[in-house]
Amino acid sequence: AALTPEQTATLDKLHQHVSQHTQSYSLVESLTTEVGHRMAGSEGDRKAVAWAMDMMQGLGFDKVWKEPFEVHPWTRGDLSIQISGPYPHTLEGLALGGSVGTDGNTLNAEVVYFPDFAALKDARPGSLDGKIAYVGFRMSRHKDGHGYGEAVGARGAGASVAAEKGAIAFVLRSVGTDNNRHGHTGMMRYQDGVARIPAVAISNPDADLLENQLKRGQPVQLSLNVGAKRHDDQSVTSYNVMGEITGSEFPEQIIALGAHLDSWDVGTGAVDDGLGVGMTISAAHQVASFTGRPKRTIRVILFGAEEVGLLGARAYVAAHKDELANHQMGFEWDFGNGNIYQMTPGVGPMALAHIQDFADYLAKLGISLSARNDAKGQSDMSALGYSGVPAVNFAPDGSDYFDWHHTPNDTLDKVDPEALKFNTSVFSLFTWFAANHPFDFRQ
Amino acid sequence: AALTPEQTATLDKLHQHVSQHTQSYSLVESLTTEVGHRMAGSEGDRKAVAWAMDMMQGLGFDKVWKEPFEVHPWTRGDLSIQISGPYPHTLEGLALGGSVGTDGNTLNAEVVYFPDFAALKDARPGSLDGKIAYVGFRMSRHKDGHGYGEAVGARGAGASVAAEKGAIAFVLRSVGTDNNRHGHTGMMRYQDGVARIPAVAISNPDADLLENQLKRGQPVQLSLNVGAKRHDDQSVTSYNVMGEITGSEFPEQIIALGAHLDSWDVGTGAVDDGLGVGMTISAAHQVASFTGRPKRTIRVILFGAEEVGLLGARAYVAAHKDELANHQMGFEWDFGNGNIYQMTPGVGPMALAHIQDFADYLAKLGISLSARNDAKGQSDMSALGYSGVPAVNFAPDGSDYFDWHHTPNDTLDKVDPEALKFNTSVFSLFTWFAANHPFDFRQ
Ligand SMILES: [Zn+2]
Ligand SMILES: [Zn+2]
Ligand SMILES: [Zn+2]
Ligand SMILES: [Zn+2]
Repeated sequence: AALTPEQTATLDKLHQHVSQHTQSYSLVESLTTEVGHRMAGSEGDRKAVAWAMDMMQGLGFDKVWKEPFEVHPWTRGDLSIQISGPYPHTLEGLALGGSVGTDGNTLNAEVVYFPDFAALKDARPGSLDGKIAYVGFRMSRHKDGHGYGEAVGARGAGASVAAEKGAIAFVLRSVGTDNNRHGHTGMMRYQDGVARIPAVAISNPDADLLENQLKRGQPVQLSLNVGAKRHDDQSVTSYNVMGEITGSEFPEQIIALGAHLDSWDVGTGAVDDGLGVGMTISAAHQVASFTGRPKRTIRVILFGAEEVGLLGARAYVAAHKDELANHQMGFEWDFGNGNIYQMTPGVGPMALAHIQDFADYLAKLGISLSARNDAKGQSDMSALGYSGVPAVNFAPDGSDYFDWHHTPNDTLDKVDPEALKFNTSVFSLFTWFAANHPFDFRQ
Repeated sequence: AALTPEQTATLDKLHQHVSQHTQSYSLVESLTTEVGHRMAGSEGDRKAVAWAMDMMQGLGFDKVWKEPFEVHPWTRGDLSIQISGPYPHTLEGLALGGSVGTDGNTLNAEVVYFPDFAALKDARPGSLDGKIAYVGFRMSRHKDGHGYGEAVGARGAGASVAAEKGAIAFVLRSVGTDNNRHGHTGMMRYQDGVARIPAVAISNPDADLLENQLKRGQPVQLSLNVGAKRHDDQSVTSYNVMGEITGSEFPEQIIALGAHLDSWDVGTGAVDDGLGVGMTISAAHQVASFTGRPKRTIRVILFGAEEVGLLGARAYVAAHKDELANHQMGFEWDFGNGNIYQMTPGVGPMALAHIQDFADYLAKLGISLSARNDAKGQSDMSALGYSGVPAVNFAPDGSDYFDWHHTPNDTLDKVDPEALKFNTSVFSLFTWFAANHPFDFRQ
């Protein structure tokens, strides 16, 4: 059963309207200019929650509310990292999120080079006693961003593996595809029962320089003063912020659009994930204002504390346990700036036929339907997907995403206004379709 | 008179040899890895002079020597710059070279926006009393780099113009074409008799953010702590470093290849001007080792203290006053990384015919001859050119040069090894031609 001419006409008109609308860009501009960064547990986090409530209330969402959860704050402090010999250089880098610091002390030790995480894992216990472990693996650039998965394991777990072998600090070539003098931060985790050592990512050019010194065959020394601090004994309340357009016929059935409101603290979080915030608020608002009240409820979920481990998403799943069966569909935007080129569903077999009808429409916009039907939702939305909520993943060209990702360079100028309009439109089209055609996505 | 078949054959062989040789790249790699930055008067400056002497001696130049001149050191210190209201943000920027600092104090004042330097000049005296002047002019990107000339006036003279109107600090949108969170430093100068106020360049993304706040119509405050220090009462000896291959027939006649050895302190000076150092040393060496001793003397001049006002070049002209008439030709490389596409001579009318012959050969390599004959030499070499030394300017595609120029991003990864090989070859071809065909460039 293809879409009816009326459905197609509505999609056409909605696309024409939203794909020319600057609202999603204005929202990112406002968030990045008036709030800026919003690291979980920070002052910016609190401001962002107020900003999101104000915005959605101002746009006339039927219901806007927030739901609390707790985070342990982490503060970055200052980082000073140098090659102290044989050829002294000051390096650019960033502490990884969650890293301990050096308590005001400066570590100075020889570097041991590992080409990748596997090589570090293979190091003999004790072989790094008193040394600094360095992993030089360079992330590769791909449209679908799969180089990130190949590189990020060392970021998350490298410090504890290095500490197990005796290292006193862990230094990583940044997980990023650029050549700017900016470290790429991102979350790391300590393994229980292993010494907690500082974990730092240096920029790609600085990693090249370090490796060029190592290649000369003399011992290379790094010196490191890391101002980062975990505050595990403190707890700060953060929030998920929800805005809802209540359905006219099936108000209990929820079509959920997600993005994360938090960001890292080094840029303004424009690409990660300010534009997702703009897209989801705008797509929901445009559907309601342009096509009228939907049959099902449209719920925008702006998750808190995604960067530090999907804390907001987990809190949401826990708080909405009894309501999750009524979540018909969840989809999220957290992958930047390129035009959407593919849609991957994760729905029931009968629902798949409806998705296919919708995908036939999207094909006109250059968006293909993946042959797979196993999407679990992206980023935060995966917490809902793995709890049984049907999902759709939209894939953009992510070739340049990891140039800016988690760096000081994640700023408004990196947002492509045209791609943002297009993607906001795709989100609005699917929102309208899912909210007004009440087949069961689970069936 | 076209080139003879023998001349053409030698040029062909030399090009084939040098355009496949990695020596110039190895030299930049060595300079940036083993010395790093080399700001005039700094420890790196002293190391670079020793490095250059060692390198040219090691390559068997007939004569290698250095000539002293004095510089007043300037130190950058730390910079802290924030928008303090209405929406607080930490900005990225760099003090301009030569700027005074704030002596440990933090200035906090309202910003007054000027779209360009002309608008600042038009401001009423007293209208900036107690304020911070900000010039937001954005440099445009062009193959020949002419956007730099349009933007750099404000960098050099903006602080004194702002101070004349009563400003307590001068902030500039960086003179650069990129969108990275790096300020672009570069020299500024104070006008005599005008209060010396701190001068800072903020990165393009930060300039956008500042302007987006200004557009909201409320007063915007900046807070500024500038650790920069002039040391006008101190004097440090810096050096030009020369390496010479003595001519067999006309040893007194000099073909001079120039580059500057100093750099700014924020990157490793790979593009500005490490690759010029590598190109000139390698071109001279390759001509001598591949084609034999030249008839005229080939002199590589590695100028010191270019960035801070052509101090080395002026010292060279003063020291070689009596010998300048024997400088047959001077040409310099200080414009980065793109393939050379044009040659502009500045020679006598009879010499121009010989240049034309040579240019016919270069046309095969995609290099055109400019219709002008008014070149005075680039960067340092202009000090010789305006003292009467004939010159040739080689123009590369400089479209991306001002992405990295004077920023922490000026690092080895920005050097294009293939363009460097090609350009080194062009330098060697012209060096061979000028050193072995003793027509008078002045006639
Ligand atoms: Zn994200
Ligand atoms: Zn992220
Ligand atoms: Zn230069
Ligand atoms: Zn320069």
